[in-house]
Amino acid sequence: MIRDRLLELREIYRRELLESVVPFWLNYSLDRVNGGQFNSLDHDGTVFDTDKSMWLQGRALWMFAKLYNEVEQRPEWLDAARHIYDFIMRCGFDDDGRMFFAVTADGRPLRKRRYLFTETFAVIGLAEYARATGDETSLQRAADTYQLVVDHRRNPGRLEPKVFPQTRRAKAHNASMIMLATTQELRLAAPPDPLYGEVVDDALDQIANHFLDEKAEAVFEVLGADNERLDTDDGRRITPGHAMESAAFVLHEANARGDDALIPPALSMIDYSLARGWDREYGGLLYFVDAEGKPPTRLEWDMKLWWPHAEALYALLLAYHVSGDDRYTRAFEQMHAWTFAHFPDPEYGGWYGYLRRDGSLSTPLKGGMWKGFFHTPRALWLCWRLLGEMLG
Amino acid sequence: MIRDRLLELREIYRRELLESVVPFWLNYSLDRVNGGQFNSLDHDGTVFDTDKSMWLQGRALWMFAKLYNEVEQRPEWLDAARHIYDFIMRCGFDDDGRMFFAVTADGRPLRKRRYLFTETFAVIGLAEYARATGDETSLQRAADTYQLVVDHRRNPGRLEPKVFPQTRRAKAHNASMIMLATTQELRLAAPPDPLYGEVVDDALDQIANHFLDEKAEAVFEVLGADNERLDTDDGRRITPGHAMESAAFVLHEANARGDDALIPPALSMIDYSLARGWDREYGGLLYFVDAEGKPPTRLEWDMKLWWPHAEALYALLLAYHVSGDDRYTRAFEQMHAWTFAHFPDPEYGGWYGYLRRDGSLSTPLKGGMWKGFFHTPRALWLCWRLLGEMLG
Repeated sequence: MIRDRLLELREIYRRELLESVVPFWLNYSLDRVNGGQFNSLDHDGTVFDTDKSMWLQGRALWMFAKLYNEVEQRPEWLDAARHIYDFIMRCGFDDDGRMFFAVTADGRPLRKRRYLFTETFAVIGLAEYARATGDETSLQRAADTYQLVVDHRRNPGRLEPKVFPQTRRAKAHNASMIMLATTQELRLAAPPDPLYGEVVDDALDQIANHFLDEKAEAVFEVLGADNERLDTDDGRRITPGHAMESAAFVLHEANARGDDALIPPALSMIDYSLARGWDREYGGLLYFVDAEGKPPTRLEWDMKLWWPHAEALYALLLAYHVSGDDRYTRAFEQMHAWTFAHFPDPEYGGWYGYLRRDGSLSTPLKGGMWKGFFHTPRALWLCWRLLGEMLG
Repeated sequence: MIRDRLLELREIYRRELLESVVPFWLNYSLDRVNGGQFNSLDHDGTVFDTDKSMWLQGRALWMFAKLYNEVEQRPEWLDAARHIYDFIMRCGFDDDGRMFFAVTADGRPLRKRRYLFTETFAVIGLAEYARATGDETSLQRAADTYQLVVDHRRNPGRLEPKVFPQTRRAKAHNASMIMLATTQELRLAAPPDPLYGEVVDDALDQIANHFLDEKAEAVFEVLGADNERLDTDDGRRITPGHAMESAAFVLHEANARGDDALIPPALSMIDYSLARGWDREYGGLLYFVDAEGKPPTRLEWDMKLWWPHAEALYALLLAYHVSGDDRYTRAFEQMHAWTFAHFPDPEYGGWYGYLRRDGSLSTPLKGGMWKGFFHTPRALWLCWRLLGEMLG
């Protein structure tokens, strides 16, 4: 990639992050009455549902604190982080140390689920907030919640499983990916602990040696408990954007450990995901693909969502950076062009989230119970930072 | 509607039912190895996932038995019904009288859910099978399962609620609708019981006086426990096809009771659903609509699904029959034209299920864990029967 283009891209990502996405969420999402962050935002920032997702509180806390720690110590970013931190500490936790999944505007619990994702997003948020503030309570809560997640993962019988384990024992790629990503963030804030190495080793083994299937040229999302392929709809499902997100965490670990052996599997994950997920008809990345071309069953399978595109941008740029292979430049430029042509809203700022296959807008929402201040700003920040590194 | 058109339509619905939809499911869905019915069928009848939905076993049992009881005593229909009946009795029930939601091909339980829909579909299937065969065990199991559902409905604390009731107490239109529809079927087979009248009275009151909101000109799917409107995404959601399905059950009850006071609310339900749900841009019926035009959050909101169209066809024809109002003829003809232009597959038979907003095919599947042998054949049969009645 020529230097002029790197300079140009760096400015595009900086501007999109700091002049569009961050201001949108800073201006419209914070609940100044009850604390925390509203999630359901119309295209112009209007709140259309006041229920709050605890997933998204943890993720937004992480992002605001990360910007403060890594970009610039702007008081309004720390203020937003503190605002969300207070809400999580006040309303996020149940008595058993687990967390609620959704709460009302004023923090009364609506739902608690059997999955532990809320907890992992709180861990990274609390850890990053502790880095920003030196707050010991925040770090301790992050460490305790992490330990709770690890304990549950090692004793899966504690939470009622969705599928009867006596009939079918399965495991999910997202569980390994989230443990890798969560540990990578927590250890930036916490003192060293051998547990982190164990968790990361296990996650890398699961991802690189099992969920990545070199023979099938695919990254599967669900495997049998003994690593066998499941010939079910779930077992054949590929989620290209998710696999590329996972590959970026593996590449970060390759860098952190100085272990180049992790690079080829990560690049395979990106290659296979792009080959299977790029929509040759309309451009953009399909949401779900059946590995054997059997009928898609998830109705949104061919929609274009913001987060797989955000994740693909960074994964492709990082793949280029670690490999120097120009086909990643071409793939990045193609993904960049499609993404920036379809998701950003120059009028009110922020990105749309849900497009139909042809790229037309399916819903004008900018935020919902599944779309918050996370994938887009994280990818913009990571790309901006990497482009800076590439410029030296 | 002129007589020639009635004759023509009657033949279209008969042929579509008996020469396309029934043969497709009879030829491809029955599992001759393990019993019961496969659900996940590709466009050519190939099974692409062997897991079985217990919802759909109950519904298919009902449909095959109904065809046998009401259309013609064809041995292959009774055989299919018996085949599914045996599987349900062998693999459908847990020790507590509740049912599993999904099982493997050979009937081992995969999932059990906190909702009671599997049970209600078994009630109608077992009741109709008892009508076909005089099987006392089937009728007794239907009655016992119905009683279990009623008991749970009257003591909602027994099943863990999705939303903490101390924070938000809500109720759903589908719960009232299903109790109305289930009772209407069970009482065809079972001896009279004052319980049936109580359940139906309550359901009619809920639907006609609460979920139907004449002021808002809408049928809401979720209300607060004290009948208040909820200003949430769920509370604003309208499902036009579901409301029309419900209206048809209300009209059946008007007829069964000779109570004409039930006709105006049922017609309102149909009018409001059509006004809000018909897609003026591409034709067909939208899946979900926000009553106040706020951003849709369910990604499939603008897709065209088979079942709302099937339900709308019968509801509109029935509305014409009870009212004589020609605007229902026009609405029916418009819905008929769009539906028959998009859903049937003349090559292999059966209907597709999932179209994009513009009517193009999103997935080629004919059956899945949510699409079985039910809405399409039921609506075709009901329309055929009603057209016969209208012809005198």
